Amino acid sequence: MTARHPHAPVIGLDLGGTKIAAALVAADGTVLDRHSLPTPATEGAEAVLDALAEAARAVRAPGTTALGVAAAGVIDPATGTVTSATDTIRGWAGTALAAGLAARTGLPVACDNDVRAAAATELAAPHGGGDGRGGAPHGEGTTLIYAAVGTGVGGAVAAAGRMLHGAAGIAGHLGHLPSPEADGLPCTCGATGHLEAIAAGPGITAHYTRMSGVPADRLETVAARAAGGEPHATAAIVLGAEAVGRALGGLANTLGADRVVVGGGVPRIGPLYTKALAAAFAAELMPPLRGLRPVPPRGGPDAAVLGAAALPRTLPLHHPHTTGALR
Amino acid sequence: MTARHPHAPVIGLDLGGTKIAAALVAADGTVLDRHSLPTPATEGAEAVLDALAEAARAVRAPGTTALGVAAAGVIDPATGTVTSATDTIRGWAGTALAAGLAARTGLPVACDNDVRAAAATELAAPHGGGDGRGGAPHGEGTTLIYAAVGTGVGGAVAAAGRMLHGAAGIAGHLGHLPSPEADGLPCTCGATGHLEAIAAGPGITAHYTRMSGVPADRLETVAARAAGGEPHATAAIVLGAEAVGRALGGLANTLGADRVVVGGGVPRIGPLYTKALAAAFAAELMPPLRGLRPVPPRGGPDAAVLGAAALPRTLPLHHPHTTGALR
Repeated sequence: MTARHPHAPVIGLDLGGTKIAAALVAADGTVLDRHSLPTPATEGAEAVLDALAEAARAVRAPGTTALGVAAAGVIDPATGTVTSATDTIRGWAGTALAAGLAARTGLPVACDNDVRAAAATELAAPHGGGDGRGGAPHGEGTTLIYAAVGTGVGGAVAAAGRMLHGAAGIAGHLGHLPSPEADGLPCTCGATGHLEAIAAGPGITAHYTRMSGVPADRLETVAARAAGGEPHATAAIVLGAEAVGRALGGLANTLGADRVVVGGGVPRIGPLYTKALAAAFAAELMPPLRGLRPVPPRGGPDAAVLGAAALPRTLPLHHPHTTGALR
Repeated sequence: MTARHPHAPVIGLDLGGTKIAAALVAADGTVLDRHSLPTPATEGAEAVLDALAEAARAVRAPGTTALGVAAAGVIDPATGTVTSATDTIRGWAGTALAAGLAARTGLPVACDNDVRAAAATELAAPHGGGDGRGGAPHGEGTTLIYAAVGTGVGGAVAAAGRMLHGAAGIAGHLGHLPSPEADGLPCTCGATGHLEAIAAGPGITAHYTRMSGVPADRLETVAARAAGGEPHATAAIVLGAEAVGRALGGLANTLGADRVVVGGGVPRIGPLYTKALAAAFAAELMPPLRGLRPVPPRGGPDAAVLGAAALPRTLPLHHPHTTGALR
């Protein structure tokens, strides 16, 4: 890794199911250039790696030192591969993400889960401002619980100031805690009764239909009906919010969290959701944690690419000359 | 801290509700001397500090460099005080544990929760032996979940090789996760539906009585009835075990645990308990964690005092000359 350019810029890539976002980020965090293009999700892993490389080329400047890529699924930063993933991108599980990009760009590559990358920007942010209890005792560093509630329930956990990866890179799967509200419901992971089954967007929508007998195509439909005063729609949203709040409260007790962030698309429903979540969260807390409150993410629209661009600073780099056979 | 003696021994004190155990431990972990005496729990905090100092004196040798004390309750190693505690020891909450012992012994003192001290001996232990999945990826260090299931449900969590203390020193309170099996039951912390309410010894006993209508004075009675084939006794024990197994499995998913230990008195019920716990745990795990199994503590009877004696190596020391007024 050579820094011949005063900016020593790093490329950050955020791979989503529909869009690839790229940014060239200077050492001081300034975004120097941006590009985005559609994710060729149905064309398979090789096509997605090609598109990621194309996005990188579009923002690359002389002196670019490294590339960080944040992607959905379980990503192992050590091997640089996709440990497991849903089928949003065809054949994505098992992809040699870091090696594939290092070979295509000639740059050293670090990779991680997209939520973890975004959460890392929270960890670096200064505390205070009345949104929590401030720093941890005896300087062991922030313990952060970051929930991402969307089509699934994922997240990230940082303990004592360090982002956790855990066995098989699995740390942060908050959606796979047992939830009283989800009792008996099948989870995407194969288990039963996990938080995700009642609290993810599809879980809320399905629960609305179970209670009302009325079909709903998506969460936005349920949210609109709740806004119109339909009691089953309101109840399904509140139950999903309460389930997340309870799980996060229990986890805060267990880890001694000093910062709890709730992001993702579902909280955009608005106060009906966020108030129910906050109340359920507060009801779980042990006395020493009272006053801790869940907060929305600090990061703006650039959080994902900024987090991706920061990955090469803390994670193993996969160099072009050390990569093996591409898959 | 001066080491004038080749052994550079450290005193480890384990304070329980009924017994104080003391050991003089050499730098290599050898126990050089042992002593124990009853805890004067009903006589209040000052009497307990006096008894701890007496136990320390009984094992102290020339060249003793420091003292580590492990105690029940929420202990803040930074301030050296008991943040909160049940009333097992009268007036224990708020006690200046480290300052009180430093003043009485003239030694620098480190203190922590007893479960965390015992769990730290697990963290140092070598891995392997077919009882788990081995080390964490990319060398971030062991993520350990240690449950202590007894008259309460407590524990300790180490992430990326470091024992967590968390906000207000509260990390490790596994008993205060929401549990589907405890839905609606009041918890000792004031919340409702926490794991401890159905899975601690008194929780199992109370649930047996709720189901059977038959009083039981203690868990051993329920265990004896289960051994005699009484279905309600068996069901209460199995439910408590399953509740712990589910909570630990969900927590393993969330943290990416690579070692899960279940200790405390309740698992001594035997295979009826431990098999139900292991099965419920396994059913929660996401595919990448399959193969992870809960294991009993490695530590023998000396785990608590050895853990206590190790505290001065990693935690803040409270020196006699810097201590303020005793309470």
